[in-house]
Amino acid sequence: MKPRLDFVDIDADSAALATRLRQRIDGKTKPLGALGRLEALALRLGLILGSDAPALRAPQLVVFAADHGIAAQGVSAYPAEVTAQMVANMLAGGAAVSVLARQHGLALTVVDCGVKSTIPDQTGLHLAKVCHGSADSTLGPALSPAQCDAALANGAALVRGLPGNALLLGEMGIANSSPAALLMARLTGLPIEQCAGRGTGLDDAGLVHKRRVLQAALDRHAALAEPLQWLAALGGPEIATMTGAVLQAAAERRVIVVDGFITTAAVALAAALAPPVLQRCVYAHASAEGGHARWLALLGAEPLLDLGLRLGEGSGAALAWPLLKSAELLLSQMASFDDAGVSRRPG
Amino acid sequence: MKPRLDFVDIDADSAALATRLRQRIDGKTKPLGALGRLEALALRLGLILGSDAPALRAPQLVVFAADHGIAAQGVSAYPAEVTAQMVANMLAGGAAVSVLARQHGLALTVVDCGVKSTIPDQTGLHLAKVCHGSADSTLGPALSPAQCDAALANGAALVRGLPGNALLLGEMGIANSSPAALLMARLTGLPIEQCAGRGTGLDDAGLVHKRRVLQAALDRHAALAEPLQWLAALGGPEIATMTGAVLQAAAERRVIVVDGFITTAAVALAAALAPPVLQRCVYAHASAEGGHARWLALLGAEPLLDLGLRLGEGSGAALAWPLLKSAELLLSQMASFDDAGVSRRPG
Repeated sequence: MKPRLDFVDIDADSAALATRLRQRIDGKTKPLGALGRLEALALRLGLILGSDAPALRAPQLVVFAADHGIAAQGVSAYPAEVTAQMVANMLAGGAAVSVLARQHGLALTVVDCGVKSTIPDQTGLHLAKVCHGSADSTLGPALSPAQCDAALANGAALVRGLPGNALLLGEMGIANSSPAALLMARLTGLPIEQCAGRGTGLDDAGLVHKRRVLQAALDRHAALAEPLQWLAALGGPEIATMTGAVLQAAAERRVIVVDGFITTAAVALAAALAPPVLQRCVYAHASAEGGHARWLALLGAEPLLDLGLRLGEGSGAALAWPLLKSAELLLSQMASFDDAGVSRRPG
Repeated sequence: MKPRLDFVDIDADSAALATRLRQRIDGKTKPLGALGRLEALALRLGLILGSDAPALRAPQLVVFAADHGIAAQGVSAYPAEVTAQMVANMLAGGAAVSVLARQHGLALTVVDCGVKSTIPDQTGLHLAKVCHGSADSTLGPALSPAQCDAALANGAALVRGLPGNALLLGEMGIANSSPAALLMARLTGLPIEQCAGRGTGLDDAGLVHKRRVLQAALDRHAALAEPLQWLAALGGPEIATMTGAVLQAAAERRVIVVDGFITTAAVALAAALAPPVLQRCVYAHASAEGGHARWLALLGAEPLLDLGLRLGEGSGAALAWPLLKSAELLLSQMASFDDAGVSRRPG
């Protein structure tokens, strides 16, 4: 089943709701604007959930995992087997995202979108494998059109089955900053030097090599002109599955919490297909990875945190979650000037 | 009782502990440095609490409240009665800090350090009044030396009686960005224009007027040369009480979570008396108020959040709290490469 692309334009349709939300925020016992970006966040949550009393329910942190053929070109500091090892670590509760999801009461699901090895079915794992690692995009398309379509459908089906109204994006995949950088280059038109960074920690020589490899992949697929073609040829299983998930979540008006560089690739791809997707997004943080801050700026996104994170996994999304919850609670629980008998400023 | 000033120099004394903490952080299943500033935060928590397995216990958010004689000079956008009204709002659970403290399980105490009106004794209120509003520092000292000493002692006694090992600072007091700006000017030597901001929302004319008033207060007390003299003459009841609390918390090696501009004044004053105080501090956020970001930079402080907040109350400290908890939990609960059987990067 193809993902839905028929999105309400929230911002155009919700002028009256936006006015009610702003009045509610401005009536709270605080100087006008004193809660800074939390006020804009509360407004955004209200617009996404279509309510002047938005309530976040059953937040779902989904980690999309896969391996990448391009890893064979030496574009990552870590060996490819780490993807499956880290999936096991997440399921065992020992990864950073496991710790943070427990802290904040986030349901954690790891999706095998295309890990190289076979991961046994188990609690917390969702099987949606379209390949055992993608092909090397310097040699041909990373995914066939059929694999890419399957991944999109898998992501949409996954989200349809999830409870709640908030989707926090995470990912795991050795070398996956490479397909993300390739998609950034195609979607933004920026040169690869402004898109590709050090990933998990390449040194200077490694970064030069990575950029050379990525330029070769771009050159190989230069004739392709459509976002879905770029996704298949240059992307990867977890990015394609995540793109399907983002489209479905946007169609359902879930709050989409964007993590770092790789999740931004999925969101940007989804937005290239259906721009109102971005209206449903909250940006957790500016990652330290290469082009992330630049990409966010191009998307008009203002990240909540800037902590020099570059881990992925959804760790930044989990860390930002309490801020979303705060915005909700301030809107619902703070007293108004009238309720509390507090004097307004004169004049 | 005078506050203690005999502080261990944590950073000089803890080289071996710092090494153990760094090894522990670097052994976790993540690329080196990938958790960004949370890694430095985990290290800082370990150094403050003197443990390679630091555990935050029973965090206490204390809101220090008072009124200020200088409010009569028209330096605030709000009338002075709002201080007592907001104390009531906090105790009733309707203020921003009430909502955030509930969200994060922070014990909330409001301290009447010198509110103008008499607030009846009640649950959640700590009475430590040294005056019914301070005097106007443009006309004479805001506090007498005896009032200032009493406030310092009150703050120290309060902290001695609190459980746990973390103190989150908050404050409430109409016009209190004025004494804070005065203390900043004296402690840093910067001109008042670089210290005084719009507070709760002065317009351009109001800001010009405020700076003129503050310059008059500085001129009046220009002969004073000691931090404790500045605190009495230019400060206020809640800043003096908070300074005592900070000194006591530092002596006990509690984690001190600094909120915005006014709490920074108390911390900077305490550090002028005993520089190792700063080693015990975690800076929650860069406030939008006037000189706060500049002051933090001069203190060598790196705030965790930058959300344009300018509310005070301890709201920023409460919003940053989950990040401290995350740093603790990542240190204690994340698997190491060895535990999880994850491959390290080669070479």
